[in-house]
Amino acid sequence: MDVPMCTRCGRRPANYYRVSSGEKLCFNCLFRSIEDTVIKTIRRYRLINEGDKIGIAISGGKDSLTLMYLLGKFRKQGKLPKNVELMAFSINEGHPYSCFYRMARSDYVQKLSEEYDIPYKVYTFKELFGVTATDVAHGLWSKGINVHMCTIDGVLRRRAMNIIGHKLGLTKIATGHNLDDEAQTVLLNVLSNDLDRFAWFGPKPEIDREGFIPRIKPLRFVREEEIAIYAHYHGIPLMELECPFVYSNPRYELKFTLARWERDNPNIKYSLVAFGDSLAKLMSDKAVRTPLRKCKYCGQPTSGDVCRVCELMRKAGLMEKYLAHFKTLKLMDTQSSS
Amino acid sequence: MDVPMCTRCGRRPANYYRVSSGEKLCFNCLFRSIEDTVIKTIRRYRLINEGDKIGIAISGGKDSLTLMYLLGKFRKQGKLPKNVELMAFSINEGHPYSCFYRMARSDYVQKLSEEYDIPYKVYTFKELFGVTATDVAHGLWSKGINVHMCTIDGVLRRRAMNIIGHKLGLTKIATGHNLDDEAQTVLLNVLSNDLDRFAWFGPKPEIDREGFIPRIKPLRFVREEEIAIYAHYHGIPLMELECPFVYSNPRYELKFTLARWERDNPNIKYSLVAFGDSLAKLMSDKAVRTPLRKCKYCGQPTSGDVCRVCELMRKAGLMEKYLAHFKTLKLMDTQSSS
Repeated sequence: MDVPMCTRCGRRPANYYRVSSGEKLCFNCLFRSIEDTVIKTIRRYRLINEGDKIGIAISGGKDSLTLMYLLGKFRKQGKLPKNVELMAFSINEGHPYSCFYRMARSDYVQKLSEEYDIPYKVYTFKELFGVTATDVAHGLWSKGINVHMCTIDGVLRRRAMNIIGHKLGLTKIATGHNLDDEAQTVLLNVLSNDLDRFAWFGPKPEIDREGFIPRIKPLRFVREEEIAIYAHYHGIPLMELECPFVYSNPRYELKFTLARWERDNPNIKYSLVAFGDSLAKLMSDKAVRTPLRKCKYCGQPTSGDVCRVCELMRKAGLMEKYLAHFKTLKLMDTQSSS
Repeated sequence: MDVPMCTRCGRRPANYYRVSSGEKLCFNCLFRSIEDTVIKTIRRYRLINEGDKIGIAISGGKDSLTLMYLLGKFRKQGKLPKNVELMAFSINEGHPYSCFYRMARSDYVQKLSEEYDIPYKVYTFKELFGVTATDVAHGLWSKGINVHMCTIDGVLRRRAMNIIGHKLGLTKIATGHNLDDEAQTVLLNVLSNDLDRFAWFGPKPEIDREGFIPRIKPLRFVREEEIAIYAHYHGIPLMELECPFVYSNPRYELKFTLARWERDNPNIKYSLVAFGDSLAKLMSDKAVRTPLRKCKYCGQPTSGDVCRVCELMRKAGLMEKYLAHFKTLKLMDTQSSS
């Protein structure tokens, strides 16, 4: 039987069929193509500039670990702008399935940290908010308020990243969102009729919004499948334990829908992200974005009267405990005086 | 066993469970609710004004027949503005599965036409374009150009409606699009990254665009399922023969995806249409719409250099035949002098 050769180099046997382009690639060309895509994304959208102090958010999943690996490698190879400081951090949400705990091999992060000189630190919800995600969930559920654990985690984690960013003096926070995550986000925003949320989408969102540390997503044009293969062959540990909360998360269903659609339309994920980006541009170009205000409880930036964190804490009956703790972080003053 | 009673009237046994609201309805209350929704849609968006001359596009399916029935009934009941002229027309695409031919009982349209005083006429692609949809398809396919029959039908039918509108002096054309159609359209435009096309969406699209007869969709807030039940119990014939082209039409797959999503989120179709409407408003408010131009071949309004009809005809090698015929319609002069 003839082994098909790599469409790119023509020299090595093909190991991977890339549906979106129809190419058959050897691992060598596949890995180079993935790295090229990430570097091009960083350059084209100017995600990283000279002197940036970038925090890499490590969930423990393959995507954030691959991101840490790639940024470390790129800096070592001189492919990033000059004087870029890289740091990494994890957030321990404080429930048995916290992303942090899912990460079976935190020793790998330590190894990357040393190899690429990227200081790494773990923060807990407990130290940032005075309460854990489980406390919030129990508070809400005991009052008959049904909020998905992933929503609680998400709201608190976004705020946590901002607090950590201010503590560390970060200029940007890099997250491991891949093409599949981004395509799902577009579809979710559409299905929940959330036009406003697109102002936060796009390759370089939240930039120039007072009080928010800009987020960058260097992996957003790489398919999840390709990151998994890249990770596997580069010794990056793949998650061993799936979070049980995932099954009732709306993204879970969309993952399979997108996989099915992809069979007929191999570019559908790129197409969705392109749609989201056009809409993001439109929403900010046209200044339809609601100007940011300060939360009347904690002073953190928000689009309404009360930020989502305070809304959750209030509903969970944890407001006093949270605010008392929050004051000790001395972030309220920082925010109010800015 | 206790028979559940209608949630609305409490007097009659329930026959229908409305997933979007959780109501159990008797047929009486269901039918009244459907009629109320259509009348409210007409009034809220001012779809019909005094003196309007409205052409009802009859495909032969349940939706357009229900639309003709309802508009006739509403006018008879004095629920429409004064002096509204209603006409109905069908378009025979000229292939064995033309919507017109699928309609097993054209005698029903004749009956409605007489009962509600709505003149009815059939036009063929052959008389409007000088060629049939089959001619175009054969022309394209023989050159190895794969265009779906539904696309050919759609492009020519939209133009046909405009030509018929000008011939009959219509002020508006009413189509039978229901909530499911509209939700699918939003999803399709998103998935094909077609932001511009949203300028054409919305409750009352194409109004104030020179050369285009405005389209109105009075059934766009009624779920397809409810129209089918309404039709069945009002003696409106349901289509007996499914068009074989439907299986490879992208809408067909979306129909099932939406049905599955609806189980978890009963309002998902309304939500999608609301998203489409917000985007439609944004696209026209912000004047992102490309100003209309005239096709360099036929003079009909288009957003580019060449309209989609001429593009198809040219590719199919039918341009000369088509243009020669088109001149005899004397529409080019009408358009150019306007």
